[in-house]
Amino acid sequence: MHQLRITPSLSSPSTDLYIGRGLLKSPLLKNSCSHLSGKLVIVAEPLVRNLYAQELAKNLNAALVSIPNGEAAKSLQTQQYLLDELFKMGADRDTTLIALGGGVTTDLVGFAASVYLRGIALIFIPTTLLGMVDAAIGGKTAINTAFGKNLLGTIYPPKAIFADLDTLQTLHEKEWFNGLAEILKMGLIRDPSIWESAQKNKKDPDLILKAIQGKIQIVEQDPLELSLRRILNFGHTVGHALEAVSGYEMPHGQAVALGCCAEGYLSVQLGHLLPREFEKILEMYEDFQLTLPPSYTRAGFLQALSHDKKNSSGNIRFVLIDKIGHAMTFDGIYCRSVSPDQLQSTLDWMEARYS
Amino acid sequence: MHQLRITPSLSSPSTDLYIGRGLLKSPLLKNSCSHLSGKLVIVAEPLVRNLYAQELAKNLNAALVSIPNGEAAKSLQTQQYLLDELFKMGADRDTTLIALGGGVTTDLVGFAASVYLRGIALIFIPTTLLGMVDAAIGGKTAINTAFGKNLLGTIYPPKAIFADLDTLQTLHEKEWFNGLAEILKMGLIRDPSIWESAQKNKKDPDLILKAIQGKIQIVEQDPLELSLRRILNFGHTVGHALEAVSGYEMPHGQAVALGCCAEGYLSVQLGHLLPREFEKILEMYEDFQLTLPPSYTRAGFLQALSHDKKNSSGNIRFVLIDKIGHAMTFDGIYCRSVSPDQLQSTLDWMEARYS
Repeated sequence: MHQLRITPSLSSPSTDLYIGRGLLKSPLLKNSCSHLSGKLVIVAEPLVRNLYAQELAKNLNAALVSIPNGEAAKSLQTQQYLLDELFKMGADRDTTLIALGGGVTTDLVGFAASVYLRGIALIFIPTTLLGMVDAAIGGKTAINTAFGKNLLGTIYPPKAIFADLDTLQTLHEKEWFNGLAEILKMGLIRDPSIWESAQKNKKDPDLILKAIQGKIQIVEQDPLELSLRRILNFGHTVGHALEAVSGYEMPHGQAVALGCCAEGYLSVQLGHLLPREFEKILEMYEDFQLTLPPSYTRAGFLQALSHDKKNSSGNIRFVLIDKIGHAMTFDGIYCRSVSPDQLQSTLDWMEARYS
Repeated sequence: MHQLRITPSLSSPSTDLYIGRGLLKSPLLKNSCSHLSGKLVIVAEPLVRNLYAQELAKNLNAALVSIPNGEAAKSLQTQQYLLDELFKMGADRDTTLIALGGGVTTDLVGFAASVYLRGIALIFIPTTLLGMVDAAIGGKTAINTAFGKNLLGTIYPPKAIFADLDTLQTLHEKEWFNGLAEILKMGLIRDPSIWESAQKNKKDPDLILKAIQGKIQIVEQDPLELSLRRILNFGHTVGHALEAVSGYEMPHGQAVALGCCAEGYLSVQLGHLLPREFEKILEMYEDFQLTLPPSYTRAGFLQALSHDKKNSSGNIRFVLIDKIGHAMTFDGIYCRSVSPDQLQSTLDWMEARYS
């Protein structure tokens, strides 16, 4: 088992992170929870409830609240339902919320924990690759709105994260690719060794730890996303807009993978990335079998882009890379706006390749 | 004009606070806003819109969003309306929200600013005595739910507060008493000189500055309400429950004033406060003409108390005083639970006196 600690440079308290096998059934988890004075409430979607949550609730003597599954659950409606359930069971400030599941669950439960009575304790137990390498780390919580993805939320780190690698054994192949997209993105923006390992074996378990360590380093330097942390958005400007256009039917990892290709193309077009580096990128994503969502239209896509959180004074801004393993900085801002022509020709390329 | 700075000991960024006459029309406010790079959005309720907001919006070249007036506006519905308006006008992360109005407006707008795109810049311009001495200071944001008052929210301090004393000239007598209740509470828990001044003249302008300074000192020591800050809750355990029972018809100041008397009685009953000190307290509140709300029932009141944010492991906890000007500490926790008998006999007293 690996034990890490995330200590952001300012503001937020630190998070203890445990990664290893058998954590869900370990005395470590049970002991950590038995030190907490108040009520424990596990929140999970139906599949995770059956696989792990019921047993864990019994084991920890915790209450259990079910939420719907899928990206659509990351809504104000589900958040309100969860908060109401907490009020009804009389959860007070000593209560600890345990989010057990994928990124949807940790994002939603984290947001609820951050506003319930102005903030209660929070533990994450991610059960998907995407959750472990990305969503659970860094304190971002979120829900989606009609205007786009992750548009409401807070920065509210959990007290602890228990990433039990055994839970990945029940993951579908599709879910694995979902998480792999974030691992590869970390390779593109930060750590060329991730990219090299993935070229040899996309299921190399070291990839998980490397991606987590990469994210921790970035988040510790810039917890509030004022500068460096923006690079984590590579592939996500296009990716989030694709998800929105698909009505959140498109899996996050597929959208991010397609987004990395499109934003890689943009990096080439702006003269930052060499075409032969870009060819390697396209090759890596070949077995993702990327396609645009059936509901894609350029007008809808541009509308969704207009709500991107990086936008400034009406300009859409992109993170760009100048080689595999390095995101660019633009006077410390780490993203830049592009001309309408440059954007249009990237969309021409994207539509031609992925329709 | 007085200029103060609120610098919490941990976590949150500092707030610049300006108190004086003519601030709304001053170059200071205009210059401060002209340094901001993005869009400005003023949020106000209809009365404040007519009195100040329209003129200020023109002056600052800001957009203006109206919200309903009264405590009922501190709801999830109004918050969602406000957030939707921001999305519709394309407000991005460079946008600054300016809350212009009383405590309802600053609490609600503060909460919206803290979750919109995970947090945008915020300025408070309180126009009521209650807003200036209490709601605007300390970074607490909130909305009410069906389960009680201020049960959802965040800790999210504004960048700046402009308290223009001229706006108090349009205040009704009732609104003045509303703010005075929080000033007197500060006198009871912390600063006996406030109490002495108020005994001579309840409209002494020095009371405002003293109350603000008292709150700043407490908030700087304990921004997240882990210990000392709890003493600000004196009078509010009973007060919030009265407001909830009244369907938020009872003004906050009236509820807090009645709450201070009831919790003063409890302090006497537990042997902490001398009866003759308590007599002075009752005397001070005589011209508040306190009465329980028409919809008061003991069952409803106890139900509302059960959602108090200080509750721990099912116990209702109260802040207590041992003399005028001093709240008690109980092993650093600053509040304690009382027996059902002690609570019942305080309610007997309260019902007999204020029905």
